Amino acid sequence: MDLLDEPVPGVGTYEDFNTIDWVREKSKDRDRHREIATKSKESVLALMKSISDAFSGWLLMLLVGLMSGALAGGIDISAHWMTDLKEGVCLNGFWFNHEHCCWNSNETTFQERDKCPNWKSWAELIVGTNDGPFAYIMNYLMYVCWALLFSFLAVSLVRAFAPYACGSGIPEIKTILSGFIIRGYLGKWTLVIKTITLVLAVSSGLSLGKEGPLVHVACCCANILCHLFTKYRRNEAKRREVLSAAAAVGVSVAFGAPIGGVLFSLEEVSYYFPLKTLWRSFFAALVAAFTLRSINPFGNSRLVLFYVEFHSPWHLLELIPFVLLGIFGGIWGTTRLGHYPVLEVLVVTAVTALLAFPNSYTRMSTSELISELFNDCGLLDSSQLCNYANVSVTKSSSNALPDRPAGQDVYTAMWQLSLALVFKMLITVVTFGMKVPSGLFIPSMAVGAIAGRLLGVGMEQLAYYHHDWVIFRGWCSPGADCITPGLYAMVGAAACLGGVTRMTVSLVVIMFELTGGLEYIVPLMAATMTSKWVADALGREGIYEAHIRLNGYPFLEPKEEFSHKTLAMDVMRPRRSDPPLSVITQDGMSVEDVESLIAETSYSGFPVVVSHESQRLVGFVQRRDLVISIENARQRQEGVVSASRIFFTEYTPPQPPNSPPPLKLRGIMDLSPFTVTDHTAMDIVVDIFRKLGLRQCLVTHNGRLLGIITKKDILKHMAQMANRDPDSILFN
Amino acid sequence: MDLLDEPVPGVGTYEDFNTIDWVREKSKDRDRHREIATKSKESVLALMKSISDAFSGWLLMLLVGLMSGALAGGIDISAHWMTDLKEGVCLNGFWFNHEHCCWNSNETTFQERDKCPNWKSWAELIVGTNDGPFAYIMNYLMYVCWALLFSFLAVSLVRAFAPYACGSGIPEIKTILSGFIIRGYLGKWTLVIKTITLVLAVSSGLSLGKEGPLVHVACCCANILCHLFTKYRRNEAKRREVLSAAAAVGVSVAFGAPIGGVLFSLEEVSYYFPLKTLWRSFFAALVAAFTLRSINPFGNSRLVLFYVEFHSPWHLLELIPFVLLGIFGGIWGTTRLGHYPVLEVLVVTAVTALLAFPNSYTRMSTSELISELFNDCGLLDSSQLCNYANVSVTKSSSNALPDRPAGQDVYTAMWQLSLALVFKMLITVVTFGMKVPSGLFIPSMAVGAIAGRLLGVGMEQLAYYHHDWVIFRGWCSPGADCITPGLYAMVGAAACLGGVTRMTVSLVVIMFELTGGLEYIVPLMAATMTSKWVADALGREGIYEAHIRLNGYPFLEPKEEFSHKTLAMDVMRPRRSDPPLSVITQDGMSVEDVESLIAETSYSGFPVVVSHESQRLVGFVQRRDLVISIENARQRQEGVVSASRIFFTEYTPPQPPNSPPPLKLRGIMDLSPFTVTDHTAMDIVVDIFRKLGLRQCLVTHNGRLLGIITKKDILKHMAQMANRDPDSILFN
Repeated sequence: MDLLDEPVPGVGTYEDFNTIDWVREKSKDRDRHREIATKSKESVLALMKSISDAFSGWLLMLLVGLMSGALAGGIDISAHWMTDLKEGVCLNGFWFNHEHCCWNSNETTFQERDKCPNWKSWAELIVGTNDGPFAYIMNYLMYVCWALLFSFLAVSLVRAFAPYACGSGIPEIKTILSGFIIRGYLGKWTLVIKTITLVLAVSSGLSLGKEGPLVHVACCCANILCHLFTKYRRNEAKRREVLSAAAAVGVSVAFGAPIGGVLFSLEEVSYYFPLKTLWRSFFAALVAAFTLRSINPFGNSRLVLFYVEFHSPWHLLELIPFVLLGIFGGIWGTTRLGHYPVLEVLVVTAVTALLAFPNSYTRMSTSELISELFNDCGLLDSSQLCNYANVSVTKSSSNALPDRPAGQDVYTAMWQLSLALVFKMLITVVTFGMKVPSGLFIPSMAVGAIAGRLLGVGMEQLAYYHHDWVIFRGWCSPGADCITPGLYAMVGAAACLGGVTRMTVSLVVIMFELTGGLEYIVPLMAATMTSKWVADALGREGIYEAHIRLNGYPFLEPKEEFSHKTLAMDVMRPRRSDPPLSVITQDGMSVEDVESLIAETSYSGFPVVVSHESQRLVGFVQRRDLVISIENARQRQEGVVSASRIFFTEYTPPQPPNSPPPLKLRGIMDLSPFTVTDHTAMDIVVDIFRKLGLRQCLVTHNGRLLGIITKKDILKHMAQMANRDPDSILFN
Repeated sequence: MDLLDEPVPGVGTYEDFNTIDWVREKSKDRDRHREIATKSKESVLALMKSISDAFSGWLLMLLVGLMSGALAGGIDISAHWMTDLKEGVCLNGFWFNHEHCCWNSNETTFQERDKCPNWKSWAELIVGTNDGPFAYIMNYLMYVCWALLFSFLAVSLVRAFAPYACGSGIPEIKTILSGFIIRGYLGKWTLVIKTITLVLAVSSGLSLGKEGPLVHVACCCANILCHLFTKYRRNEAKRREVLSAAAAVGVSVAFGAPIGGVLFSLEEVSYYFPLKTLWRSFFAALVAAFTLRSINPFGNSRLVLFYVEFHSPWHLLELIPFVLLGIFGGIWGTTRLGHYPVLEVLVVTAVTALLAFPNSYTRMSTSELISELFNDCGLLDSSQLCNYANVSVTKSSSNALPDRPAGQDVYTAMWQLSLALVFKMLITVVTFGMKVPSGLFIPSMAVGAIAGRLLGVGMEQLAYYHHDWVIFRGWCSPGADCITPGLYAMVGAAACLGGVTRMTVSLVVIMFELTGGLEYIVPLMAATMTSKWVADALGREGIYEAHIRLNGYPFLEPKEEFSHKTLAMDVMRPRRSDPPLSVITQDGMSVEDVESLIAETSYSGFPVVVSHESQRLVGFVQRRDLVISIENARQRQEGVVSASRIFFTEYTPPQPPNSPPPLKLRGIMDLSPFTVTDHTAMDIVVDIFRKLGLRQCLVTHNGRLLGIITKKDILKHMAQMANRDPDSILFN
């Protein structure tokens, strides 16, 4: 009687904070697929099952897209409403935000619409007027109070219910996608708390964005929806394919950039990205973007966050200021963000709110700020930034306005923007790393956009007043629209974002999807390229890599080349001075022997050899599977005692009489362990680990087993080679 | 004296029609890089060298972009001129094409400009008039004669100088990128001849496009430019990275779609596409696109080939006709293109020209046709397709025109287009596979665009006359612009192209870059998805895969999953009935033994074992390296004779006196051959081969060498499993 013919529950699963074996997972999925395909020829029901299995991936993608799009829409609407709540309330119904409240207002001009009678600021509501210093202070106080309330709620909720909900989540998602297991990181509690606290954190006016966390939210949705389908619930590798697509969905809804989202997932987040996933991610990203558009949170039917239309082309010479912006972005990228985690969220919120309120550019939401900075001043624009002296416009047919001298308001705006720049830079550095959901995309873009707009307006005025200079001659004649400050803001935003995240192609694509302008790829590329180079030259890592390293996650960076000339024998365990490798022989050990081996060591698996003398490798067995199987056999299989012999061979030799029944464990042994020779160069070993997603690899010499290399060994070796502490790698 | 300490020339290179070993090539490059990095600390000169080495990749990309862009511009201009030459000549100078000739004409209206006095049709030039049947026949004859001349020149040049220049070249480039070597396929002769004959073939009016061949041209440029840099000249793997980028450049210049080009390279062509290549491809693609734009071959300053602007959104119900177009595209994709290679190019040319001339839609160049079909009819459009009955236009401010009843000309156009559709479909089937440079993109797009436009106009008229039907109610009220026939043409073009090539994401991105419309992703995606599914369901392969299989190239398709439950022992050689594996022992064989082993077998490499008895694996040695080294030693090393012993061990044991000096060959042995156990599932083996780019892999059982699996063995096994002839795999 051999009960072990049926699978033991738990065999082949992973413990928390462990790395999965991609090869085994993918193999398991192919077995499952093969079984379904074979069965499908037998009956109609099985055929239906096979078809539904084939389409379950697409269905899952559809659901992920719908759910993420709907959630993102909800977050947008709530955040918008709560941000406005800090300033006032709508009399028609407190659930209207400022814009909706004034929607049906009778005022026709755009400027007046802002001051519709139904929308009351707190001062108006309490003391009945909006004028005078007392009302100002009243509004100021209410603004700070609301901000404190929101951030207090956010931080308490995160602390009480879901500590995993803080931060952007992208470094952890990268690690999870590379094959690491962090239970609960993408669970339903994280989703609920992250969604709520994200709205609170954004509304509190802290210098953080919702774009990074939206990636986490989308991944949570995907992980939860995976439980509906056995195919994805049971298989860690298949689930990671869905999560890769979900990362694309997250960016797609964050920016309304489906193609950029897919490229972001491909370039920045994903580890294993087969072409099938590319296609499905694209589908899911589109579904999400269109769901979001149907919800229409921005009220303008646009898919994109910052739609701009520029009317004049750029000139080759402008590449110089663009590259300067790139350098600025690169330097910003090396700022040690998050190295000063201030635990006192309330203090930061209070400081942010107190400093932000007096300056209109910091008081408005960061997205609005970016939108305004990107904007090309038209004739009808009434914003402070567009207050140019009116010059007689000759070409009325074209939308392009010639460069004009700046008015007084523009100079005021410049001052305010300069202050806002300093403020944003300082406050972002302390905000990032706080224990609330926080993204870096929007604050970084804001810093870059402010710097870009300042430079742009400067260039514009220079060109206007000195159009006879050599550099401007030929393309900046008076009356020509040669400098577009909005474009500079856009380029600056891309440069800063690129410096922080080190994204390249995906960033350029996101920017051009964001703004709808295919013509401006070259300026964007020049800036992001410069910023990446500068940032790489100044300090090696992007923000996500730094975060992963700080946390000691076992992440094998696919972008970095291993460039040292070490061999597998230098990295493998045991080292020369260590005791020999712990192995199990295929037919020579009793249950007791194996149990004591398990008790004495903490290795996560053991090689099985023919005999101690020959050291010829037979297979590899996982510690967890071994423990579960022996436990199971002791409980359920009659007569299995400590003296029972364990066999990993195909056939059990006849046992002497009176000996306890043997335990056959060939079923849990991996018959095809990966091996390399001791002379294999480590760069090849690293390549194999990366491309195949291995957990461990055995080392042989002339056919004899010599040692073992695990992912952790490799990461420790890499850390050592880079003169870092090898003990900073915490997990296996 | 051991002359073998210095490298023997030729060791480590590959023969023609062989597969490279990616692991070895990449390892070689890392060694080189490490050496430069170490040296750079020693002197300033070495440091400069190291920096120039680091930037050589970018410089190469720049050159590839510039050269390909310039060549593409030249091809466009020449093809344009020669296409017009079939109809007439310019009196100002024969080198002007029709458009340039009439550029400075005094006629102001657009219609009249076509008939400028300086442009003379052949009839006008010879008999002095363009009217009457005689002049028509005259023009007809000249048209056919020129076409015959061009195609005769094209086919003769290809046959005489560069047989590799025919076809689109994409299947071969796919194979080359996967690691195959075809010497001369990307050489300078191929480049020169392909460029010239491409212009001739396109101008001859044959139903073929220049887009696929442009990918080949760009790859030739890249391959030739690689010779300027040692890094890329010497390393097959590095060179393939550049070629991957060049494929992106090709599509970028063919369609003016840099992002689509990069995705095309990633999705369709490339095998090994690291992130670094992604970024560089993007750079090169942009450089090429901007070079092309500066040359401005279309004379409209647009980067894109078919710029369209649609004015009305699409309705959800329209997805039904879009899916229908997808089904049409899928069916078109399963057409057995190229299965009827007609060698008589002149006959096909004559038939094409004779049938094409009378129908204006087939007479114009295919790009013009597509452009016209994509066009949304504006108020000022005078083309036959836009001859709608004038309905009073109420909203003059908007560009959108309401749906109108079709005029007589539109009905005529419908007839002509229907005939053109049948003609294009038939002629494309026989044209593809001819021995001239020919691409499938444009003819397929034309077929789809015609079908789409026909359906679009049909829908439009249906909606106009039956706007009270349930399906039209609510969105197609009279006076509304609800159906855009141009959009249907675009969707149809995408569907047919998708059916033929099975591209997905890259196709959608190319289409939207082509047309500049981000709003139409969903219709495009619905159509391409349907067309891919339909084509996959009807016949498994895309056109490139079919071509690769027909030619017996050793290409391991990365998209296809291996789904059979076989083990490594079922595939490895020797089979059970075969003689045992030919091995070399590490210290037991003489030069004579090895030479006879080489003479008797044709294997491309031999495993080295400790001894015949133990069969414990030491390493692997390539046949080519062995032959070269023995030859070299016999010539240059004193005393090496047939009786000399060959040693692969680290230390040579002392030889008995009077014995000839030993030959030490450890240096040419690969000390880290890849091994799998005999129980490894074949799906895992296939995965390893694909991901690591192996040539061969050794099979062991319990530490003993058992056999070998080569890429050819795997491909043969896959062919067998799919019930195809395993002997169709020709190369190793």
